[in-house]
Amino acid sequence: MAELRGGIDLGGTKIQTAVVDAVGDVVGQARRPTPTRGGPEDVAAEMAEAMREASEGAGVETSELAGVGVGSPGDADEQTGVVSSARNLPGWEGSFPLAAKLKQALGTEVKVGNDVQVATEAEFHLGAGREFQSLIGVFWGTGVGGGLILDGEPWLGRGAAGEIGHMVVKHGGAKCPCGRRGCLEAYAGRLAMEAEARRQEKEGQKTDLFKLMEKHEKPRLTSGIWERALDHGDKLAEHLIDRAIMALGTGIASAVNLLDTEAVILGGGLGIRFGERLMDPLTKEMAKHLFVDERPPAVRVAALGDLGGAIGASLLVSR
Amino acid sequence: MAELRGGIDLGGTKIQTAVVDAVGDVVGQARRPTPTRGGPEDVAAEMAEAMREASEGAGVETSELAGVGVGSPGDADEQTGVVSSARNLPGWEGSFPLAAKLKQALGTEVKVGNDVQVATEAEFHLGAGREFQSLIGVFWGTGVGGGLILDGEPWLGRGAAGEIGHMVVKHGGAKCPCGRRGCLEAYAGRLAMEAEARRQEKEGQKTDLFKLMEKHEKPRLTSGIWERALDHGDKLAEHLIDRAIMALGTGIASAVNLLDTEAVILGGGLGIRFGERLMDPLTKEMAKHLFVDERPPAVRVAALGDLGGAIGASLLVSR
Repeated sequence: MAELRGGIDLGGTKIQTAVVDAVGDVVGQARRPTPTRGGPEDVAAEMAEAMREASEGAGVETSELAGVGVGSPGDADEQTGVVSSARNLPGWEGSFPLAAKLKQALGTEVKVGNDVQVATEAEFHLGAGREFQSLIGVFWGTGVGGGLILDGEPWLGRGAAGEIGHMVVKHGGAKCPCGRRGCLEAYAGRLAMEAEARRQEKEGQKTDLFKLMEKHEKPRLTSGIWERALDHGDKLAEHLIDRAIMALGTGIASAVNLLDTEAVILGGGLGIRFGERLMDPLTKEMAKHLFVDERPPAVRVAALGDLGGAIGASLLVSR
Repeated sequence: MAELRGGIDLGGTKIQTAVVDAVGDVVGQARRPTPTRGGPEDVAAEMAEAMREASEGAGVETSELAGVGVGSPGDADEQTGVVSSARNLPGWEGSFPLAAKLKQALGTEVKVGNDVQVATEAEFHLGAGREFQSLIGVFWGTGVGGGLILDGEPWLGRGAAGEIGHMVVKHGGAKCPCGRRGCLEAYAGRLAMEAEARRQEKEGQKTDLFKLMEKHEKPRLTSGIWERALDHGDKLAEHLIDRAIMALGTGIASAVNLLDTEAVILGGGLGIRFGERLMDPLTKEMAKHLFVDERPPAVRVAALGDLGGAIGASLLVSR
């Protein structure tokens, strides 16, 4: 059983866990909502519970796992196992020794890493990026995150590389949730898109987005709600998705002009849902800005789906 | 004498050569205007002559050099020594076996490489980037070129990495000499700045830029002319330099958000002339867009000046 590893993808809305075998297959999994109240202790307890549930599905105790990896938001220190400033999690403005806490609860070694970087590595080793030696992972969801693989190795810079969502696509442009202006995420992040939809609805723009949200009892405009709205021909939804594709195509092309990678892997909640459907407009927008336009990079939708983050987290164990 | 190497920086307006010793010191140098007529054969003949002149200054025959490196515009193939599509050189739309031709003329091995990349490597090994392991070289001149050093090694991507000048800073913005819109170079490249100055003068904007150009018998708005105009308080010159700094700060910050390098080295004709003078507004503009703004990268002006390209080219020999 020593070759089974655990992976936990800690997100702002859900905790996804997986037990992964030596060839990367998922042999157990569980999902729980992320606590919205309390603090890091409560989140860690829920993570441990979700990891136990996945292990049960795989027929093992957590203590039998070779280790557990965690893909975390905020500032995750791989050396110390401490996670700081995870601002989309309850009461996590400071630092919390997540790895130590989970080790105690699970009875096995625990490592933490950056959520987007581990998801990029999962796609590189086991998913849509397997055939490439260099790629940019673009995770289009609540925000727009990115991860880099260069010459077969993760490129972390001084620890914060990959912030493709905060590359500027329009100087002086839309306000970004990060407080700056004109970032890719200001146009394409789900949070920013929802804020813009609300603003335009208030100004009298007709849309069914919020009616659909209420009808399906969602607390926010999920990727599923955006898809339904597009299917209904909702003009505002179409406009805001076009705008997101403009920003994604521009920012990704800028990144490729700088790095000239072989591939771009598009993941994240919106990326996985809309990747195939919007691949044509996305690559067309990219083509407008690519400096070496006769050999664009391969653009692929992430292959590991929602489980990519947890699978990638499990890869931290073998380090 | 085997430790002496030659370097040739082949530019659109001048050919700069240098003889460099084992510790990187320049022991001979020469400069000639790049032929504006004829074809690659004529350019190669002039390069050989300039290399002989530098060697004479160092007291050696070119055949005594350990080798000669060439930093070339266009598409320079390090493996074959062929340079293609060097569109700012006369009659060089096609391919020309530059290394083979120069080897014949100089009696020593010749290697070719990309001009901007070798200048970046020169700054990394011998200039302003010596203390860093990762940096972005930004060459602000006729165009805006870039080179990358990551983890102490050049990053070339699929051969065309580093095109920071064609990162988009303003979607739908100014027309770039490359034909696309909103590129960094569309605002900061000398060619684009001169075109914009002419356009605004035609529209009635007052400026001394072109009078200064004529007075100093320059065929174009050189970096020296821009400097004189700024010193005179020329409003249009100030406006266009501000615009260039806006674009440079935005594009460089985007690149740092993606790569999180330790340093940025600013070179090129305009970069060397204005780097210190405009360092403050440049870093202020960058700060607006840096995602991790509490620890910006070091920003340094290139230390090897005009000779950086030729010194960097000489480093090709030791590969």
